[in-house]
Amino acid sequence: MAGAIAYISRDTDGLAWNKLLAEGLGPIDFRTLRAGLGNTDDIEIALAWKPTPGLLASFRNLKMIVSLGMGVDHLLADDKLPDVAITRIMDEGLVGQMSEYALYWGLWHHRDIEKYAASQRAQQWKPEEFVDTIHRRIGVMGLGTIGQDTARKFAALGFPTAGWSRTAKTLPGVETFHGADGLPKFLARTDILVNVLPLTRETRGIMDKTLFAALPKGCFVINMGRGGHVVDDDLLAALDSGHIGGAALDVFNVEPLPPEHRYWTHPRVHITPHMAGYTNPRTASPGVIDNIKALRAGQPLKNTVDAKTGY
Amino acid sequence: MAGAIAYISRDTDGLAWNKLLAEGLGPIDFRTLRAGLGNTDDIEIALAWKPTPGLLASFRNLKMIVSLGMGVDHLLADDKLPDVAITRIMDEGLVGQMSEYALYWGLWHHRDIEKYAASQRAQQWKPEEFVDTIHRRIGVMGLGTIGQDTARKFAALGFPTAGWSRTAKTLPGVETFHGADGLPKFLARTDILVNVLPLTRETRGIMDKTLFAALPKGCFVINMGRGGHVVDDDLLAALDSGHIGGAALDVFNVEPLPPEHRYWTHPRVHITPHMAGYTNPRTASPGVIDNIKALRAGQPLKNTVDAKTGY
Repeated sequence: MAGAIAYISRDTDGLAWNKLLAEGLGPIDFRTLRAGLGNTDDIEIALAWKPTPGLLASFRNLKMIVSLGMGVDHLLADDKLPDVAITRIMDEGLVGQMSEYALYWGLWHHRDIEKYAASQRAQQWKPEEFVDTIHRRIGVMGLGTIGQDTARKFAALGFPTAGWSRTAKTLPGVETFHGADGLPKFLARTDILVNVLPLTRETRGIMDKTLFAALPKGCFVINMGRGGHVVDDDLLAALDSGHIGGAALDVFNVEPLPPEHRYWTHPRVHITPHMAGYTNPRTASPGVIDNIKALRAGQPLKNTVDAKTGY
Repeated sequence: MAGAIAYISRDTDGLAWNKLLAEGLGPIDFRTLRAGLGNTDDIEIALAWKPTPGLLASFRNLKMIVSLGMGVDHLLADDKLPDVAITRIMDEGLVGQMSEYALYWGLWHHRDIEKYAASQRAQQWKPEEFVDTIHRRIGVMGLGTIGQDTARKFAALGFPTAGWSRTAKTLPGVETFHGADGLPKFLARTDILVNVLPLTRETRGIMDKTLFAALPKGCFVINMGRGGHVVDDDLLAALDSGHIGGAALDVFNVEPLPPEHRYWTHPRVHITPHMAGYTNPRTASPGVIDNIKALRAGQPLKNTVDAKTGY
């Protein structure tokens, strides 16, 4: 039998992965962090989510790391990360869920749901002025697989939609901006900002007071990228001043979000516990199976990660 | 100058319509119910929303009625409705808004937003089990322009989507059912039910205890059709028993919804004040202008209404 596949996650038991990989690969030596890894010299492949720094380096015969999330900042934060192939899942199920999350909060803001809920509590029939969809400008920061899907779906609903990325990209029906020069122009035309950037040295702390000041007054902010993109004190100040109209936050600098954090009780902050996109073994496993077969056959891998750019 | 155009609505002042019709038709004699109709013998065309029964019959030279809503039940309820051409707006802006409303509440239910809001109030980080989008079945009752758009947009997000209509229809990517025979099968496979039927003699009261009993336990109901589709006591009983998991209601048997109605305070009912789709003069006026030109040139009209079927 080929080398062992280790499932390294404290969040889930890996049973779904074990089943799907066995279906795709035949008999496998599948081990999990929760149940015990056994002799780690046997481990050929590690499926990992937030591994303890140094753990992967202790697997002496490791040949490939598979990130169980589409973001790989959780791996690159390990300064002892071994020099083996790094790939990541490419999960259409997760991508679709992320878009659902952004659409949900975008529509919540666009359709004034908070005001209608308040009217219901007051038992008051009170239609509000409506904003024509063609006047509600969506801006998506990050145009990888998730950002493209999110932007495309907002555009399909008739919202004027733009995207911003580090390097120039084009996307049908979506206005695109790029680089440091393009950022202020992108922000100035954005009424609902969706962040799905990868977390890298360049993007850490990008959502700071300068960025918030460049957005129009009342802009609604949706963060489903990483908590590390946000300077929390700057966001809270922008919310308190009323310049930022509200925020839906799924990711945080520290997770779980500490009980004492001001976000929990802020009237214009909506918190979800990093649930915008769950890795879905059903949709993520086919690509992982293909990569395991390719690795063992000496063929090129897909969805590889460049440790230098961070995605 | 041609005959007068009368704007018959107690809800809005008609200024946007006056401006857009004058841009499209040249000088017009535009009159409004609010400002006074003058000599009603001058009126050739009536743009109407919920006219007082008998009013339109008093316009002796009327040639065309334009419904300011896509539903025409508000006109057909007038048993003195004059025997002239009836057309209705076909408003892509309104259609898009209706789909937004259905998507919003569909995603609200699908993504367990209520549970996350409760966790935030308790300052508790608590991810919930997720339901794979391919296992959340959407059912749209009514496959006119709005229903088709709504179904298509849910399907584009990956939800298994079906539609039901009186007569057989086909729609790419959407399973379709029709007629009385098809209704129970359609309901049995529906986790989120969206109603956008026209209100006719046949559909009045269709959402009754028999219909609710045919839905799976926990089904979420979105009504953006007409209040007259719902037997309110049956819906309340199905909500109280837990068989229906929740309801988002935009339309009611009596509007505004009376202050003492149980819906206002029911914990699983979400009320909005008939705001799912506003007629948008920007998107609705081009078709009305075309019909006014056609009427005056003796050409065939579009978007005509069959008073017998009620749509």
